[in-house]
Amino acid sequence: MRTIDWVDGAVELIDQTLLPDRLEVLRITTVDGLIDAIRRLAVRGAPALGVAGALGVALAVATERDPGPAVARLRAARPTAVNLAWGVDEAAARIPEGPDAVLARALAIRDDDVAACRSMGERGADLLAELLGDRPLRLMTVCNTGGLAAVERGTALGVVQTVHERGRLAEALALETRPLLQGARLTAWELARMGAPHRLAVDAAGPFLLARGHADAVLIGADRIAANGDTANKVGSYALALGARRAGVPFVVVAPETTVDTATATGADIVVEERAADEVVTFRDRRIAPEGTDAVNPAFDLTPHDLITAIVTDRRVIRLDMGETLASVPPGARMPMRTAHRG
Amino acid sequence: MRTIDWVDGAVELIDQTLLPDRLEVLRITTVDGLIDAIRRLAVRGAPALGVAGALGVALAVATERDPGPAVARLRAARPTAVNLAWGVDEAAARIPEGPDAVLARALAIRDDDVAACRSMGERGADLLAELLGDRPLRLMTVCNTGGLAAVERGTALGVVQTVHERGRLAEALALETRPLLQGARLTAWELARMGAPHRLAVDAAGPFLLARGHADAVLIGADRIAANGDTANKVGSYALALGARRAGVPFVVVAPETTVDTATATGADIVVEERAADEVVTFRDRRIAPEGTDAVNPAFDLTPHDLITAIVTDRRVIRLDMGETLASVPPGARMPMRTAHRG
Repeated sequence: MRTIDWVDGAVELIDQTLLPDRLEVLRITTVDGLIDAIRRLAVRGAPALGVAGALGVALAVATERDPGPAVARLRAARPTAVNLAWGVDEAAARIPEGPDAVLARALAIRDDDVAACRSMGERGADLLAELLGDRPLRLMTVCNTGGLAAVERGTALGVVQTVHERGRLAEALALETRPLLQGARLTAWELARMGAPHRLAVDAAGPFLLARGHADAVLIGADRIAANGDTANKVGSYALALGARRAGVPFVVVAPETTVDTATATGADIVVEERAADEVVTFRDRRIAPEGTDAVNPAFDLTPHDLITAIVTDRRVIRLDMGETLASVPPGARMPMRTAHRG
Repeated sequence: MRTIDWVDGAVELIDQTLLPDRLEVLRITTVDGLIDAIRRLAVRGAPALGVAGALGVALAVATERDPGPAVARLRAARPTAVNLAWGVDEAAARIPEGPDAVLARALAIRDDDVAACRSMGERGADLLAELLGDRPLRLMTVCNTGGLAAVERGTALGVVQTVHERGRLAEALALETRPLLQGARLTAWELARMGAPHRLAVDAAGPFLLARGHADAVLIGADRIAANGDTANKVGSYALALGARRAGVPFVVVAPETTVDTATATGADIVVEERAADEVVTFRDRRIAPEGTDAVNPAFDLTPHDLITAIVTDRRVIRLDMGETLASVPPGARMPMRTAHRG
């Protein structure tokens, strides 16, 4: 089952606002319907939004006499989501070539995400076997980096899935990921659906659980990777990196090659998005702090490269722990999926 | 205003279950009323429960012909709260001497807590001035270690309060403290009431905020301190200690002398309480994770002594960073409060 797809002339997507309580697939036939779904976070996650943008242009071309205004509205549905604008632009560039060319580009973006995630899963699982041996593994992760953030399979959670498909997952430990609880709501749901043994923990417990030997490795995704390997990801990643280092546990970043930003020299050059205090002082729409209490709410944090064991992309593995760098290891070909699916 | 007190022949206490939404003082005239308040966590926090136990015995003596059964029920109201049983036993030992002796012992326990917390506040604030200079400070803390956990003033938050009363608090950064949100609900409420500038953050952001220079020191309480200085405290403390060390920020433990347990050699000998998964997978009775998802829920964690800058008790300051140990620094006298109250 795919998070987002093109089915019989319409966009179909899982309504993530209803998870984990209910699985419902929305069938969307108009651009404005898609814009609404994007705005209310029915679909989220950088790769999924890129695909949504591209498929939305295909919808616009199919339904509007002049697709221009609809495409512009779609592109601005979530201003900070660069992937959405990127997907829109990629597909819109083909409008002069006709509807078939637009749809072909959108479907190619979709397929490219699927192939990239499969390749990351294989490379990541191979790396863990190399680092830890071919044995049952307990893997800790944070936020949602699974199929729900992409099309079919995810990045860090895609590696967990591949390890599970290889029959080597002893337990996935998902951190709940306050304030928006993507770990508790989405990652736990994905793990349950793939039949993977898993437990949840509060974010604050992560480093201590590592100290107590509850996990063999930590896997995180990435929002941006600087040229020196410093990695921006969901807030809480840095604390896990500190905990992993003290516990002597591998800390692995898993993200598509497109996340590597060689124009940014180090993490110090990455601007960390500050989000609204409301997310912190409320919990699922109910206020938890006194009226008037403000909050500081960094959405991401930065993990310095010296705390990262390896970076896994769809095209390479960079062993930072062995002195390798993004500059010293050139990207190669994607790996085909060789892991046997189990049902 | 006191969290718990003896007023005109009855126990009066702040009903913490209503915070931060509403401040209500319960007037309790029977032992069973007190047991109910303890069971539903209207009163919580180790020192406050010790005082509740002692005052409850005074209530029993005043209201029951044979106080024995009521005292036994009270003692068992929260089996894991050792302070409750301790307070009950201390006051009950005076029953043969008559009601006045019982009440006198209960009031002495209350007063002793007030004096100990005042002393910790002074010693802690002095230490921070010594470590960081006499300048406005930004102080990070976790859980609730304030007056709500004690009688009048708290331990780590008592130090924050003293720094504020000295006019040297630039900002208190309170971590929300999942799963039970004592930081968001109780610490933020106390900081607002004392007029202290403060903000809230999710627990996962703590180490990153330290890396970004948002706090000058971290202050935590303690549930138990082993002979070598290893400290058990609310889960999340260890992650902050790692973050403080990497950021070069002092990490200070503040707890009464009674928390030091020289019979326990190291943190490895401390059993960490595992609490119910329900606390993690639900929020205020609403499920946040899929049905069937289990959780691991350590209530406390352990901070190794090498990550602790200093331990502050009511009777001494042990500079672990200077090679001092609990064995090398004998307890002294309590400090009188010299900080001027500001209204």
